[in-house]
Amino acid sequence: MSVSVEFEAANKQYAATFDKGSLPLPPGRKVAVVACMDARLDPAKVLGLSEGDAHVIRNAGGRTIEALRSVVISQQLLGTREIVILHHTDCGMLTFSDDHLRTKVRNELGEDVDHISFLPFADLKKSVLDDIQILKKSPLVLDVPISGYIYDVTSGKIEKVVPQP
Amino acid sequence: MSVSVEFEAANKQYAATFDKGSLPLPPGRKVAVVACMDARLDPAKVLGLSEGDAHVIRNAGGRTIEALRSVVISQQLLGTREIVILHHTDCGMLTFSDDHLRTKVRNELGEDVDHISFLPFADLKKSVLDDIQILKKSPLVLDVPISGYIYDVTSGKIEKVVPQP
Repeated sequence: MSVSVEFEAANKQYAATFDKGSLPLPPGRKVAVVACMDARLDPAKVLGLSEGDAHVIRNAGGRTIEALRSVVISQQLLGTREIVILHHTDCGMLTFSDDHLRTKVRNELGEDVDHISFLPFADLKKSVLDDIQILKKSPLVLDVPISGYIYDVTSGKIEKVVPQP
Repeated sequence: MSVSVEFEAANKQYAATFDKGSLPLPPGRKVAVVACMDARLDPAKVLGLSEGDAHVIRNAGGRTIEALRSVVISQQLLGTREIVILHHTDCGMLTFSDDHLRTKVRNELGEDVDHISFLPFADLKKSVLDDIQILKKSPLVLDVPISGYIYDVTSGKIEKVVPQP
């Protein structure tokens, strides 16, 4: 059975007790979260978000370079004034290189993707710090508080990443 | 106070009763969800997802063209074999044009972003159908079930979008 049919059934339960029907469009807590797409990471649960609180932008690795379009819309049109980045332990992005995935795509799909970077990383803390810097240096991003965290998939805890002095 | 400090406090509560510490990296239900970043939309609650179930990719509008890198990683490295797209009513993407936002960015930030498309849309059902087609036509995406839904932010319900015959 298609998972989408299971989603439809689960949604009937959610809608049956739904009471958030009058929330405004702009995020109430004026924050945008940039997180990895990882299945084990539920940003709302991990950070205590309720419906209406925050924009949540997610992609493979939680890379901010790919989140720029969304961040500009979030800040310029919907008033967010803080950014929180959330990467995590045991991330898939630590397990491959661009060369490895390009070769796999060529072999599996017959497509040349040498022009694409899949944005893997080899160092988790550095990936968070790099992603903070990409936002801080972008002329398209407002000068707002930006912080970065690593979520530990074995403990459920987040740890703030700060540059070494 | 920075929202990130509130997130740290909320995370202590989540971690205190955390019992999902041994989940595998590949999504258990072998599905990738592509959803809008909207604050009122919690894909896990709306679709009945638990930690470990699904990749969740989110950006402004839930646009699949920007999700391609993540979808390739999800399918080629982590074994997902279905895609579900989730847009929603009252979306911010319905409220502006590229020209409007480009002018705003020029006025507010002094930056020329005429080369960037912010991927707004004027028709919600069409945005879902377009985003399904982008994935179906991409040579980088496997031939898997792809379905699209509109989430109603006033009722909590999802409605499947199917092409008119």
